[in-house]
Amino acid sequence: MIELDQAVKARESLASNLFDKLRDGTHDGLGITRASYGEGEQFAHTLIGEHAESLGLEVECDAAGNTFMVLPGVNREAPAVIVGSHLDSVARGGNFDGAAGVIAGLVATTALQDAGVVPARDVRVMAIRGEEGEWFGVPYIGSRSALGTLPTHALDQAKRVDSDITLYEHMVLSGCDPDAIRAGQVSLPPTSQHACIEVHIEQGPVLEGASIPLGLVTGIRGNSRLLNARCLGEYSHCGGVPRANRRDAVVAIAEFIGSLDTIWTQCEADDQDFAFTVGKLFTDPDHHTLSKISGEVGFTLDMRSLDGQFLDAMELRVAELADEIGRRRSVVFELGQFLRAEPGVLSSKIREELLAGTKALDIRSMELGSGASHDAAAFAAAGIPTAMLFIRNANGSHNPREDMALSDFTEATRVLAWWLAHCL
Amino acid sequence: MIELDQAVKARESLASNLFDKLRDGTHDGLGITRASYGEGEQFAHTLIGEHAESLGLEVECDAAGNTFMVLPGVNREAPAVIVGSHLDSVARGGNFDGAAGVIAGLVATTALQDAGVVPARDVRVMAIRGEEGEWFGVPYIGSRSALGTLPTHALDQAKRVDSDITLYEHMVLSGCDPDAIRAGQVSLPPTSQHACIEVHIEQGPVLEGASIPLGLVTGIRGNSRLLNARCLGEYSHCGGVPRANRRDAVVAIAEFIGSLDTIWTQCEADDQDFAFTVGKLFTDPDHHTLSKISGEVGFTLDMRSLDGQFLDAMELRVAELADEIGRRRSVVFELGQFLRAEPGVLSSKIREELLAGTKALDIRSMELGSGASHDAAAFAAAGIPTAMLFIRNANGSHNPREDMALSDFTEATRVLAWWLAHCL
Repeated sequence: MIELDQAVKARESLASNLFDKLRDGTHDGLGITRASYGEGEQFAHTLIGEHAESLGLEVECDAAGNTFMVLPGVNREAPAVIVGSHLDSVARGGNFDGAAGVIAGLVATTALQDAGVVPARDVRVMAIRGEEGEWFGVPYIGSRSALGTLPTHALDQAKRVDSDITLYEHMVLSGCDPDAIRAGQVSLPPTSQHACIEVHIEQGPVLEGASIPLGLVTGIRGNSRLLNARCLGEYSHCGGVPRANRRDAVVAIAEFIGSLDTIWTQCEADDQDFAFTVGKLFTDPDHHTLSKISGEVGFTLDMRSLDGQFLDAMELRVAELADEIGRRRSVVFELGQFLRAEPGVLSSKIREELLAGTKALDIRSMELGSGASHDAAAFAAAGIPTAMLFIRNANGSHNPREDMALSDFTEATRVLAWWLAHCL
Repeated sequence: MIELDQAVKARESLASNLFDKLRDGTHDGLGITRASYGEGEQFAHTLIGEHAESLGLEVECDAAGNTFMVLPGVNREAPAVIVGSHLDSVARGGNFDGAAGVIAGLVATTALQDAGVVPARDVRVMAIRGEEGEWFGVPYIGSRSALGTLPTHALDQAKRVDSDITLYEHMVLSGCDPDAIRAGQVSLPPTSQHACIEVHIEQGPVLEGASIPLGLVTGIRGNSRLLNARCLGEYSHCGGVPRANRRDAVVAIAEFIGSLDTIWTQCEADDQDFAFTVGKLFTDPDHHTLSKISGEVGFTLDMRSLDGQFLDAMELRVAELADEIGRRRSVVFELGQFLRAEPGVLSSKIREELLAGTKALDIRSMELGSGASHDAAAFAAAGIPTAMLFIRNANGSHNPREDMALSDFTEATRVLAWWLAHCL
């Protein structure tokens, strides 16, 4: 029988093979698209589920379409440990965001089997649905459905950005059972879970910059988002209208964005964690021209912080800012509702155990915070001891150029397998 | 025989009828569209030319497709006086911008005929092509072709924004003769023109605010424009990238626009005429999402001033600003070339004559500058004594809600006819 750490390394080709198949099946011409409750995500779940079955794991699917692949432990009655991540992606994104964590779980459990290591309790590899908020504007759909923490009105109210069809209907089309979710069916009752570890590529350049393959995540930023905000002014001729009479939506939104940037500078001086992004910003292509003052600008806003109370304060501040600029510039901001995902407080105990693993395996690591949102935040918010392991990744994520070395992926999987063998 | 001023009033129904026919023939569902060298413009030229012929005027067309409708004067050898404006419109614009001036010229000359007044020299009513810069990004195509001041490389280089076809080809499709323009054929040699008066709706709210029907224009702002500018950053995950590593095109363009707004405030304090408009501003719909830092923003810029040297200085300042913000925020501004239209210096002699006309006819008027560009600027730049008469108009222009009262239109036409009868 092979030694566990060798078994993980020997399964690198399984990971490589699965990544290739995922890429081939969900490439959209520009990048990877696996829409939440869409075709690409479905392809990924079928692929991963079938592989898990062929590797001898018990494969289950819950009402929200999450796939669970279980390696039985010594004590099958004990609360299980959950490892994995999500399989959906943003539109024209990369192949590793989400999928790396699912495949790491699959490879680690396979290596445990290869090495004849039976873990103390069940290991449940999770492939979660609907993590990428851009599709429905609702954070953590799959994980919160499984945990029983999804507000069920989202089923009928949230519509997918590309189809304008509700989450409920998309779930039905994907063979899920949204009525069971609405009725309170829960596949991962939080009090019955031992712990959760999510492996994920880093979405920033910190590990790359430090030349360190693994990151031990100290916390996950929450976010507060505006999905469909607008600034409304009045279209009029660009030369003929005196400045005092202009109702220029473009100048108003520029001041709004500039003010948020100034607030961020102040946050840095105060050591207050914050980030904001206006990812979409657009005058109306049906009405805008070179020579017209713009009467309408659409935009999105994403604000992040490790500090939930600061996000509360920022929601108020954004509304005040919109009011003040709107009054002064004779425009109206229609912000819509803020959508919130709370910050995730992670387990320092598991983080220390993972650190012990990296030392035992002689792998370099560092601590860092997660600026991006992750399903792990939903598990942490539900009271489950949760940790995250970041894999070094070049060129960021949510774009086709994300670039994780397979060798770094294997380092993360070695640590995960070590932890499953030693810390349950 | 009817008295001239009564003759103008009696022809109000001719104006009303022509405005209605123009609207009916060029309504696009939302507003009026008479694209330069396009279908709607062609319809307007045919309609106006046929009416002019039926009214007994001599109708000619030049190589650029401009229509001239001539009322013979006493001395046919003397330099003619030109009255009129353009017949094209922006997309989804209003019915009066441009057309009011052409119809005013037609009604005034018809009234001269009705009253048996033979003017001292030929009166040439002009219906100009290609005034609206948004179509080809080239100012004053028709008038500068007629005057011999159009840079002929524009024929091959300028493409219409909606068709991507060159000005040359559009001219050919409209039955014009761009080869003759290139060969130097000129229909309105500047030294052979006596004077030019353009009647036009006001495109701002000044006359409306002052409750005065007519404006005597003191000067026409020049403009400097960027048609296809871009700010290039880098797409990356909105939460995972530390602030120092972000290359956010949206925040950079917001600062750029905010800086121009600050410059404008300084200009107001210094009594320096200026206006700027970013009419189009858009992240890339094929790549932007809620959760991605924006890697690209497209925009247009229109800067205006009565002071051509100030526009020179602003072109330099914009380039410096783009450089400085680009360096500081790790983005690149691709501004492209500035396209210029020089300010128009108008004839104070004709303005005083027009003022005398308003007094003789007991019509209230006021002096005001033109923030918008007009063909009159091209005539003034060519050395022809030029004046403009503005008609009160609600709701601005370049939109379907522009609103000129027919009674105000008739006041302008009365003054124009008075001037043609008394000042040639």
